[in-house]
Amino acid sequence: MLNFESDYVEGAHEALLERLLLTNREQLSGYGADAYSVAAKEKIRAACDDPNADIFFLVGGTQSNRTVISSMLPPYAGVISAVTGHIEVHEAGAIEASGHKVLPLPHKDGKLAAEVVRTYLESFYADPTHEHMVAPAMVYVSHPTEYGTLYTKKELSALSSRCREYGISLYLDGARLGYGLASDGTDLTLPEIARLCDAFYIGGTKVGALCGEAVVFPRGGAPKGFFTSIKQNGALLAKGRLLGVQFDALFTDDLYYEISRHAIEMANTLRQGLSEKGYRFHPETASNQLFLMLEEAEYASLSEKVAVSFWERLPDGKVIVRLATSWATTEEQVAELLSLL
Amino acid sequence: MLNFESDYVEGAHEALLERLLLTNREQLSGYGADAYSVAAKEKIRAACDDPNADIFFLVGGTQSNRTVISSMLPPYAGVISAVTGHIEVHEAGAIEASGHKVLPLPHKDGKLAAEVVRTYLESFYADPTHEHMVAPAMVYVSHPTEYGTLYTKKELSALSSRCREYGISLYLDGARLGYGLASDGTDLTLPEIARLCDAFYIGGTKVGALCGEAVVFPRGGAPKGFFTSIKQNGALLAKGRLLGVQFDALFTDDLYYEISRHAIEMANTLRQGLSEKGYRFHPETASNQLFLMLEEAEYASLSEKVAVSFWERLPDGKVIVRLATSWATTEEQVAELLSLL
Amino acid sequence: MLNFESDYVEGAHEALLERLLLTNREQLSGYGADAYSVAAKEKIRAACDDPNADIFFLVGGTQSNRTVISSMLPPYAGVISAVTGHIEVHEAGAIEASGHKVLPLPHKDGKLAAEVVRTYLESFYADPTHEHMVAPAMVYVSHPTEYGTLYTKKELSALSSRCREYGISLYLDGARLGYGLASDGTDLTLPEIARLCDAFYIGGTKVGALCGEAVVFPRGGAPKGFFTSIKQNGALLAKGRLLGVQFDALFTDDLYYEISRHAIEMANTLRQGLSEKGYRFHPETASNQLFLMLEEAEYASLSEKVAVSFWERLPDGKVIVRLATSWATTEEQVAELLSLL
Amino acid sequence: MLNFESDYVEGAHEALLERLLLTNREQLSGYGADAYSVAAKEKIRAACDDPNADIFFLVGGTQSNRTVISSMLPPYAGVISAVTGHIEVHEAGAIEASGHKVLPLPHKDGKLAAEVVRTYLESFYADPTHEHMVAPAMVYVSHPTEYGTLYTKKELSALSSRCREYGISLYLDGARLGYGLASDGTDLTLPEIARLCDAFYIGGTKVGALCGEAVVFPRGGAPKGFFTSIKQNGALLAKGRLLGVQFDALFTDDLYYEISRHAIEMANTLRQGLSEKGYRFHPETASNQLFLMLEEAEYASLSEKVAVSFWERLPDGKVIVRLATSWATTEEQVAELLSLL
Repeated sequence: MLNFESDYVEGAHEALLERLLLTNREQLSGYGADAYSVAAKEKIRAACDDPNADIFFLVGGTQSNRTVISSMLPPYAGVISAVTGHIEVHEAGAIEASGHKVLPLPHKDGKLAAEVVRTYLESFYADPTHEHMVAPAMVYVSHPTEYGTLYTKKELSALSSRCREYGISLYLDGARLGYGLASDGTDLTLPEIARLCDAFYIGGTKVGALCGEAVVFPRGGAPKGFFTSIKQNGALLAKGRLLGVQFDALFTDDLYYEISRHAIEMANTLRQGLSEKGYRFHPETASNQLFLMLEEAEYASLSEKVAVSFWERLPDGKVIVRLATSWATTEEQVAELLSLL
Repeated sequence: MLNFESDYVEGAHEALLERLLLTNREQLSGYGADAYSVAAKEKIRAACDDPNADIFFLVGGTQSNRTVISSMLPPYAGVISAVTGHIEVHEAGAIEASGHKVLPLPHKDGKLAAEVVRTYLESFYADPTHEHMVAPAMVYVSHPTEYGTLYTKKELSALSSRCREYGISLYLDGARLGYGLASDGTDLTLPEIARLCDAFYIGGTKVGALCGEAVVFPRGGAPKGFFTSIKQNGALLAKGRLLGVQFDALFTDDLYYEISRHAIEMANTLRQGLSEKGYRFHPETASNQLFLMLEEAEYASLSEKVAVSFWERLPDGKVIVRLATSWATTEEQVAELLSLL
Repeated sequence: MLNFESDYVEGAHEALLERLLLTNREQLSGYGADAYSVAAKEKIRAACDDPNADIFFLVGGTQSNRTVISSMLPPYAGVISAVTGHIEVHEAGAIEASGHKVLPLPHKDGKLAAEVVRTYLESFYADPTHEHMVAPAMVYVSHPTEYGTLYTKKELSALSSRCREYGISLYLDGARLGYGLASDGTDLTLPEIARLCDAFYIGGTKVGALCGEAVVFPRGGAPKGFFTSIKQNGALLAKGRLLGVQFDALFTDDLYYEISRHAIEMANTLRQGLSEKGYRFHPETASNQLFLMLEEAEYASLSEKVAVSFWERLPDGKVIVRLATSWATTEEQVAELLSLL
Repeated sequence: MLNFESDYVEGAHEALLERLLLTNREQLSGYGADAYSVAAKEKIRAACDDPNADIFFLVGGTQSNRTVISSMLPPYAGVISAVTGHIEVHEAGAIEASGHKVLPLPHKDGKLAAEVVRTYLESFYADPTHEHMVAPAMVYVSHPTEYGTLYTKKELSALSSRCREYGISLYLDGARLGYGLASDGTDLTLPEIARLCDAFYIGGTKVGALCGEAVVFPRGGAPKGFFTSIKQNGALLAKGRLLGVQFDALFTDDLYYEISRHAIEMANTLRQGLSEKGYRFHPETASNQLFLMLEEAEYASLSEKVAVSFWERLPDGKVIVRLATSWATTEEQVAELLSLL
C-alpha cells in the first residue's frame, strides 16, 4: 500500500547507513567525543557561516526542545509559542514537566506574527499584576511550521527584532528544516537563521537520518553546563557516533540539501498534478507537506488505497488530509498516487 | 591503539546492522507501532517467560531510569540506591530533575544488601519525624553493578521480599544485563529477574546495539499513561523501527545471550591470563568488566599503549583501572593486551 | 482614602485575633497537631456534613492549588481550567513548575460549562494522537470565579457527572468561598460542594483570617502521603496553631457564614445604589465583587478618591473596575462611595 | 506539663501581637507593598549594615530554602550541604522537587568545614567524568546548625573564600539566627554574615513571630524575577502585612536581639544547672538548644513530666534529648525543670 503518511515512515538515506557500516568496527570515544561528531560539527558551522557556533547532537525533537528550552529559561519564565506549536500540542507536556509554562498565542497558518508577539509583550508589561504571571523569556517557532508553512526572511527578522528589543531569546524548531531550506521561493538560508536566532535545531530524523537533531547555538551562545543538561535530560547517547556519523554524511557534499530538494520536487509534482485535477489545499504550502481538501467520500475511498494522515474535519464536512513526501519518495509513488485521485 | 575502555566504544553487532539495511526501504509506522517492534516484544516476553509483560523500547539508560522511576514514584517519595548507583552518581541529577530524591545507602562492591535496606526502612518508620522526610518507595539496583559484580538469586530474592513486605517496588537497571546473564556461575536468569522485580530494563546499547534499552514491566505492571510519559521525557523515537529491528535481531536465535557469552569468555581469558601473571583485581568480578590493580608506574606505561578507564586511586597509591570486553572483543586483542602486561 | 480594591487589604476579623491572643501563651504541638487544629477540623467536617472528610490547613491559595493539584495528578496528566482561571493566569506558573500543564478552555463570565468540558474530552479521546498529548485528569473551577460569578447546583452537578464519567477529579478553588455561600439566591451549600467535588478549599485569607485555607478531601479521599507533600511544597507551618486557632474561630457559631453575609449585604447595597444611579456591571455578579463599567473620565475622577482595581478596558473605551466588599466593609464606607459616584 | 520540646511550641511575642491588633483596621496594599513591610526592610538593611540589600518576607523555612535555592541554581547544578543539613534530611525532598540534587558532605557537630568543601570541589573537577555529574553551584549552611552549634567568623570566612574562589554561592539558613547572634562568645554578627554570604534568611517563626522569615540578598544580589519566583513557589502572602508588621516590630528597638538573648540566658542557666548536677551534653552548644545525654531510665522518667524531643540513641544505649529554650521561656520553667532532674 502506498504510504504518504509522514516523513518518518522511512528508514535512513543509504549514504548514512553505508557510513555507519563502514565505520562500525572502529573503536570510538563515547558521548560525542568521536572524530565523526567533531567533523560533523565543523561542517555544520561552515554551513551556518558561523565559525563560533556551539553544536550538540541530540536524539529527537521533543527531547531537543525540552533540553534547550529548560536550559535557556530562568525558573520564573515561560516560552511563547503559536497555539498550534509542537511544544504546546504534541509533546505530552514535556516543557511543563521541566517546570515552564508554554504561553500560546494566535497563529496564522501555523505561523506566529511579530506583531502578535509585540502586542502580547506590550500588554504583559502594561498589566500591573504582571509580576504574578509567567514572564515571557523566549519565542518558539517552527520552520517549516506544523502546517507546512514557511517564514519569510522579513517575518523572521521582525520576530528577531522584537525579541532583541525585549531581551528575550528566539528559538527555532527545525524538525523539517531541510525541507524548508529547499522549498521554492524561500529566502531563509541557514546562515540567515543562525544570524536571527539564539538557538535552533537542524532536524535529522525527518530528513534522512535514523534519528538525531543538531542543536545549534550561534555565536558561541550555548547555556553554561549544557552538556550536563543534555545528560540530565536523558538525551546523551553513549554511542554518540550514531549521530556524528550520520550528520557528517548529511553535511558532506550538500547531501542534506539535495535529499531535501528531492522531497520538494516530489511535493511540487504532486501539488501541480492535484491542482490540475481541481483539488485544493488548506493551507497552501511550499514545503514537503500538502494539506489536501477532500469530500468525505473521496477521503473514505482514498484511505483504502493510500496511508495518509487525517488532519481535521472542516465545519462544512470536508476533510483535510496530510500528504508528506520525503527524501525517499519516488516518482513512481507520486504518479501512482496521482492516478488514484 | 588497543581499546578496552568500555563496551560502548564499538559500533553495533553486524547482524543488527544487516537487519536495518534489509528493512530500510520498508515504510513502517512510527513511534513503536511497526511490526518489528511488535515482534521483538513478543520474543522478549518469551525470553522472560512472562506472556503478560509490558515492554517499551527507549533509547538510553539514563533516560530509561528517569522515565521509569518518575512514572512509578508518587510525588512525595524517593528511590533507594547504593551510594555507588548510576542514578546517584553519574546521571547528572536526572532523577532529582524529575522531582525525586535518591536515597543513598552503603554498598558492598556496588551491591545493596537486603539487610541494609531493611534496617533503613525500619529506622525510617521508627523515626517520629518521618513524615517530614522523603518516603522510600522504590529500591534501585543495577545488575551487573557499576563495579561489575553480580547479585545471586538469593540476594535478589531477599531484596524482593523486603520490598514486597514494605509495599515498595524493586527496579533493576540492566544496562549490561546480557553480560550478567552470561557470566560463569550466575544463578539469575531473565525469568527469575522478571519474577522478582517490578520493573527492569534489558540493555541494548552496551550489548551489541547502536542504542536502545527494553524496559520490562512484568505481569502487565506498566504504570498508567506510560507511553505518554515516554513522550514527555523525550524518550520516544519517531522511527521506533530503529529499536524494534535491533531488539528483534538480538532476541532471535539467542543472539543476545551468545554475544554476551563471547564477551564473558574474552573477559575470562583476560582474567586468567592476568591472574597467572600475578595481577590482582579489586573488586573481583565475574562479568565483562575487570578492575585491575596496578602500580602507578605500570599504569603510566600501560596508558600509552592501551585505552583503559581510570577508576580510582587507592590510599596506598595503587591505581585501579577498568578493562571492559564486549561482544566485539577479539582473541587477538586479548592476547595483545596480555602480552603488554 | 476609601479602599474597595480587594478583600485582602484588611487585617483579620477581631474574633480571630482575640483567640490568637487568648491562646498565645499556651504551649502547643507544632505542624497542625495542636488541639485547636484538631477541633477546627471537626467543625469543618460537621459544616460539610462529611464525618470522614480529610482536612489540612495550608497558608495561601496558590500554595493550596499547587499542592493539591500536583498531589492528585499522575505525572503524564494536566488540569483543565477556564482560560480565566487563577491557576492559568495569576499563579506565576506554579502548576507548571510542579510539572503539569494547565489545559485552558473557553469560559462564560469566568465559568466553565460541563458541555465545554465534555466536548473537549470527547475530541481529546477521538484524536488518534492523544497519547502524544497531555492527558486531562482533573477539572479546576473556582467558586466564586475570578469574575465574581457563581455556579448553580445544576451546573456544578453537571461538571461533577462529566468528571466521574471520565474518571477524572473535580477540584474547586474556594478562595472566596464564604462570599459564594452567603450570596443571594445561591443553591450551592458546603455539603453539596463536598458531595460533588473530590477536593476543594475553604478560603480563610480573603474571608476574615490573616492567612490560611482549609483543604478538604471529602469521603477520606486525601492522596497518600499528602502531609509529606505539604511539607515538600513549603506549605507546612511550624506554628500550625496560627491556622488552627483562626479556623476554629471561623467555624464556631457560624462566624464564617455571618461575616461573609455581611460582605454580601454591603455589596448588595452598593450594587443597588449604583444601579439606581444608572451604572452597569460587566459581568453582573451576586457575590462580594462588583465589576463596574465606567467612562474613562469617570474612572480618572474616581481613582483620585477611592482605591479600586482596574480590571480591563473594553473595545469601546469604557473601563471596568473591580470593587470588593469584605467582612470589614462598613455601611459608612458604602454610603461614602455611593456619594462619590 | 513543662514543655521544652522546641522553640515553636509558643505563640508570638506579645509586642508583635499588639502591633497586629493596633494596625488591624488599616487598609493596606497586599503582597508586601504595605508601609510596614517597607519599613521593616529598611530596618533590616540597617541591622545588616547593607543599604543595598534586597529583602523579601516569606512564610516559613522550607519554603524559603526551596525558593532561594531553586532561584539561584542553574538547572544542571546542585547544592552542597552537611549530611545533617535541614534541606537534606527534614524538608521532604523540597529541593529535589524543585529539580536540584542536594550534595551531602560529612559534618562535624552539624557544621561543614571549608576544608571538606575544598577537597570535594577539587576532586569533583579532577574527575574526568564530572560533566556527567551534578555540578556544585552553592554551599548551604545553617547557623545555628541543626545541632545547635555555631560557626565562628573564621570558619564562615573560610567557607566564603572557598565559594568565591570556585564561583559558587554561599547561602545561610538562619531559622534560629537570633539565638546564634545572641549566644555567648560568638563573633559572627549580622553585618558580617551579610558580608560573607550571597543569601541568607533571618528566622522569625522560631524567634518570636507567628510565622515569617526575612530573606536577604546582600549588595542588591536578588536573582532576577525573584518576586515572581516567590509567587510561583506558593510563598507570597496576600496579606503581606502579617509579615511586615511582625518584622517591623522585631527590628524596632533591638527586640529581635533582646528576646533572643533572653532565650540564651535561660539556656545558660539550664546548662549550668545541669552541668553542676553532673549531666553531659552531646554535642556541647552555646545556643538555645541543649542536647542532653541521659540514661534510658532517666529518659523514661523525665518524659513523663516534661515534653522534650527525642534526638537519638547512642551505641552504648544512652539517649540524647533536645531541650530548647525560647524568647518565651521563664525562669520558673527553668527552675522547675532543674528540680526534676
